[in-house]
Amino acid sequence: MNPNRALGIVSFIVSSMTFFEVLIAADNENLEDVCPTAASTALFINGYPCKSYANISASDFKSSKLSTPGDMDNFHRSAVTLATAADFPGLNTLGLSVARSDIEVDGLVVPHTHPRSAEMMYVSKGVVIAGFIDTETNLFQKRLREGEVMVFPRGLLHFCLNDGFEAATVFSVLNSQNPGWVSIADALFPSQPNVDDADVVNKLRTRLIASSMGSHLRG
Amino acid sequence: MNPNRALGIVSFIVSSMTFFEVLIAADNENLEDVCPTAASTALFINGYPCKSYANISASDFKSSKLSTPGDMDNFHRSAVTLATAADFPGLNTLGLSVARSDIEVDGLVVPHTHPRSAEMMYVSKGVVIAGFIDTETNLFQKRLREGEVMVFPRGLLHFCLNDGFEAATVFSVLNSQNPGWVSIADALFPSQPNVDDADVVNKLRTRLIASSMGSHLRG
Amino acid sequence: MNPNRALGIVSFIVSSMTFFEVLIAADNENLEDVCPTAASTALFINGYPCKSYANISASDFKSSKLSTPGDMDNFHRSAVTLATAADFPGLNTLGLSVARSDIEVDGLVVPHTHPRSAEMMYVSKGVVIAGFIDTETNLFQKRLREGEVMVFPRGLLHFCLNDGFEAATVFSVLNSQNPGWVSIADALFPSQPNVDDADVVNKLRTRLIASSMGSHLRG
Amino acid sequence: MNPNRALGIVSFIVSSMTFFEVLIAADNENLEDVCPTAASTALFINGYPCKSYANISASDFKSSKLSTPGDMDNFHRSAVTLATAADFPGLNTLGLSVARSDIEVDGLVVPHTHPRSAEMMYVSKGVVIAGFIDTETNLFQKRLREGEVMVFPRGLLHFCLNDGFEAATVFSVLNSQNPGWVSIADALFPSQPNVDDADVVNKLRTRLIASSMGSHLRG
Amino acid sequence: MNPNRALGIVSFIVSSMTFFEVLIAADNENLEDVCPTAASTALFINGYPCKSYANISASDFKSSKLSTPGDMDNFHRSAVTLATAADFPGLNTLGLSVARSDIEVDGLVVPHTHPRSAEMMYVSKGVVIAGFIDTETNLFQKRLREGEVMVFPRGLLHFCLNDGFEAATVFSVLNSQNPGWVSIADALFPSQPNVDDADVVNKLRTRLIASSMGSHLRG
Amino acid sequence: MNPNRALGIVSFIVSSMTFFEVLIAADNENLEDVCPTAASTALFINGYPCKSYANISASDFKSSKLSTPGDMDNFHRSAVTLATAADFPGLNTLGLSVARSDIEVDGLVVPHTHPRSAEMMYVSKGVVIAGFIDTETNLFQKRLREGEVMVFPRGLLHFCLNDGFEAATVFSVLNSQNPGWVSIADALFPSQPNVDDADVVNKLRTRLIASSMGSHLRG
Repeated sequence: MNPNRALGIVSFIVSSMTFFEVLIAADNENLEDVCPTAASTALFINGYPCKSYANISASDFKSSKLSTPGDMDNFHRSAVTLATAADFPGLNTLGLSVARSDIEVDGLVVPHTHPRSAEMMYVSKGVVIAGFIDTETNLFQKRLREGEVMVFPRGLLHFCLNDGFEAATVFSVLNSQNPGWVSIADALFPSQPNVDDADVVNKLRTRLIASSMGSHLRG
Repeated sequence: MNPNRALGIVSFIVSSMTFFEVLIAADNENLEDVCPTAASTALFINGYPCKSYANISASDFKSSKLSTPGDMDNFHRSAVTLATAADFPGLNTLGLSVARSDIEVDGLVVPHTHPRSAEMMYVSKGVVIAGFIDTETNLFQKRLREGEVMVFPRGLLHFCLNDGFEAATVFSVLNSQNPGWVSIADALFPSQPNVDDADVVNKLRTRLIASSMGSHLRG
Repeated sequence: MNPNRALGIVSFIVSSMTFFEVLIAADNENLEDVCPTAASTALFINGYPCKSYANISASDFKSSKLSTPGDMDNFHRSAVTLATAADFPGLNTLGLSVARSDIEVDGLVVPHTHPRSAEMMYVSKGVVIAGFIDTETNLFQKRLREGEVMVFPRGLLHFCLNDGFEAATVFSVLNSQNPGWVSIADALFPSQPNVDDADVVNKLRTRLIASSMGSHLRG
Repeated sequence: MNPNRALGIVSFIVSSMTFFEVLIAADNENLEDVCPTAASTALFINGYPCKSYANISASDFKSSKLSTPGDMDNFHRSAVTLATAADFPGLNTLGLSVARSDIEVDGLVVPHTHPRSAEMMYVSKGVVIAGFIDTETNLFQKRLREGEVMVFPRGLLHFCLNDGFEAATVFSVLNSQNPGWVSIADALFPSQPNVDDADVVNKLRTRLIASSMGSHLRG
Repeated sequence: MNPNRALGIVSFIVSSMTFFEVLIAADNENLEDVCPTAASTALFINGYPCKSYANISASDFKSSKLSTPGDMDNFHRSAVTLATAADFPGLNTLGLSVARSDIEVDGLVVPHTHPRSAEMMYVSKGVVIAGFIDTETNLFQKRLREGEVMVFPRGLLHFCLNDGFEAATVFSVLNSQNPGWVSIADALFPSQPNVDDADVVNKLRTRLIASSMGSHLRG
Repeated sequence: MNPNRALGIVSFIVSSMTFFEVLIAADNENLEDVCPTAASTALFINGYPCKSYANISASDFKSSKLSTPGDMDNFHRSAVTLATAADFPGLNTLGLSVARSDIEVDGLVVPHTHPRSAEMMYVSKGVVIAGFIDTETNLFQKRLREGEVMVFPRGLLHFCLNDGFEAATVFSVLNSQNPGWVSIADALFPSQPNVDDADVVNKLRTRLIASSMGSHLRG
């Protein structure tokens, strides 16, 4: 990755500190064969109640939500589309969810953690750089081409950025039906980005470049 | 699906009762950030021991094993390539594994169960019919196009067959690092197929067609 | 086991490919001392809601369902009677269920898996042959007399057949409150058996005998 | 149960406060098909290491330990024989263990808890009274005949006494490979009983009878 | 600990065999970020339903229940105040609960087990002796000063007594939202103590002293 | 909290983005009564091997590590001292760990997550403000006095700052034997802080104040 690109990436990371994102989830203690998410009720429980067995159909176990790319026309030039037990009924009690990330050239999925799941991502199109940071602040980072797979342990910070010359598409699977999404930036700065961010971005960019050249990288 | 195709599919199902397949597995109770599979030792435990932290690198968390299609020149005209904690070290203790299935026109991934995991599959290329059978013998079956996702509960029989006009590619994720693979046919008939199978195939084919037209199908 | 008996057994296995069976389930994450299954409500959850504590009595924790043998006058000459959290309220949230199998001379409990539990069986009366097939298609099989115990791992195919000169009674415990029952035959052929099955049976019988004499048996 | 018998039972309960007993354990997170307990090694882990797959045989999954009654010629006139992963290798990682209790007329299995499992007991011969006490000190107690089943939640005090006119045999299954056994009496008084116990027994007997007639019994 | 004190302690242990106590609980499978306990409903489930997200406030995650000492003017000269998911809504689904024990000079928290959790205790004020007894009846016991921590495995008998010259305060955390409390004495003798207990106390006291001097102590 | 103090706090939060911190972990599937961490071996597993039972003593279950305050003379004016299964052997397999945080006036424990555990904190001395941010970026924040308790769900960002006029001491318990510690700042900026941070701090401070006055706060 050349330095100019790196600078661009840092801009994304930092400016992403102003954007909104969504949550997901994770576990596998099904006590029935199937338990598709029922339409909302007045009672809230941990997870979702099941549909009546008589009303379950094969459609509950299929999702077309990830067939089309999300809208990448935003500050990060990326779009993450998630399918969890909330909108893909068949996932309820199975401990799995799935996401599609579309990432434009120079686009980025910003560093985040999933409080309730590990993640495995597969590159469907393009070339990306993906990595995670462990609790001793070591960075494990790899360049991935089409067909390659990477895995991120539960609860650790990870990210993915386009390192090719076309839009990239990545599919991720998480071993929770509601993995959750904690973005460093969003958690502290949920408001919208503005022009005044430029200086902050520059300062942080400098740091990140220094860091990625340091001894903590385990390529 | 027209009847002729259905007949062909049944041939595959039945004849698949003679082939060899491979195993995998599943759980997520990691007590360390990372625990990549160590090279084999004399001590066997439930799962795998970890590499020494000093020897862990980013390569442990990346796999290129699924980048190329498997060899479909076989009786089922399909190939399943698996990556588990045994050959993708970073999966160890994370409770995830991944498989790529390439399926020729009229090819089939034969009915099987995973004793230790649920499965979520995503169609990367082509058109397939996929389904599972619950413990009350109801069949939940769907036709899936590129980009669509289907989920199979843990331990239930499921299958996938090409229903399009080109080879199909399907990626599956399982929430176990060693999900296991129990094939009806393999378990009872581990030997090689032979010409004498034809009659058996015909009998069973008749049954399956009758069944798929019966009241147990939940499309 | 003499060859003639083996042949008879195979008939059972194959013809069992037409019969109906029942489901059950499994886990142990109780958050209360007791949580007996409540009478049915409009809300379906994963498992069952609890009775109000005020209505719980000692009777919820006792079952007489297994005191008498089931009706063995059927194609398999066997009867499996199950007690799960659905009809034995005290089992709810405890992660246990229980079954009684009565097997006539030459009778058989057909190969099946439990998607959500391991199983331990105890021979109360008679002599049986029991076994399971692992995911590498090795067969682990033993002859058991009164008072002996055998265990089957979760999700693997297993079976039990009478190998003595009187009806046998076997008690099985499963570590799930709803272990589920996946029969190879039932899943694919849920209809009733008929006279035309004979040829299919003969073909498959030949295979099974060959297999049980092969290198995969680990006695 | 007539009063005289009740008195006798209390004697057993109290005098049992001097006897020695044994431990066992519990869980089900198997990551391999099978993992029979290996012969002891210098390394101690949580549970047991597995045998090498090449050395596993069907014998690992069968136990004859419970075929014969234990020696009931002791203070309690009862004998509990346990089979856990320590001596029944196939149980390792499966989350199950099993016990046989032989109880003479007027004999007793003294109140105890299992720190790591629930228990389900089945009366194979005779008539017993069994019960457990929940954390609000309510007693759930039933009389059980041959073929009847009772269940005790994890960690709660429970007991079983012969209430018939012949020796009783009870089989218990626990959903842990090492459930553990905590006896009230043993924990506090591990020494041998002596003649001076009589007065203590009498005092406590009086209390217990009063209690069993009180409002806390939920028959 | 001098003999006289030991005698006093035994009195407490034995006389505690007549007192009432309370229950609590434990696990961590949250599928949502937060799920504070909702006000009671007509439906009972394993654990508690959640509040509607719109009604959740920061107050659900804070408890002041342990700010003041309990009333130690009782037979044990101790008071245990518990905060569980039942009265500290934010604990629901998190697998944690907390207790404060105030113990007068010569006071005691009587031997008990938690059926659903391990426990870690921290001495906030004073000096105590705490210990637990494993399933082989070995006693692990330590003297703890302010700031010191001790841990008790799940389901094993443990106790804590004041060994200093002022009232002691101990905070305990349990890894269950409802750990439960099984007191040896309460379970068998739920009625109130009376003057006639003296002789029983004396007999048992003698035993306990002998025991604590025996070979089973692992200090 | 007055505005000036808030400003000071933000300085800490931001500047904490340059500091080093330590890791920990969590689960509870003990299969033995006790399994204290053994001295290091050449074999690395998920968690730690156990000491030989013969070598276990009561000292394994007691820790004095938290008796004294840590050194608060640093950029955050706070010190976190942790006791996990790595240095408190008795915690191994029990799913618990413990931490002591000493926080000077205006000091701060910086925002972080624990990838493998929820946390419960108890204020032993002083007055603090503590809070967490859920995956929808809502802030749940409370002021806590001596004796008060707050809980943070697994994997969510949380923090604690001194809001009183003397040093505060807080004890935290986590339901993992190795909960891990992911600091926003440390993960991205593991180097040492320097004077050039001032401007970055100022920019971010402005954002945080705006945020804490916005609609996302749920006091």
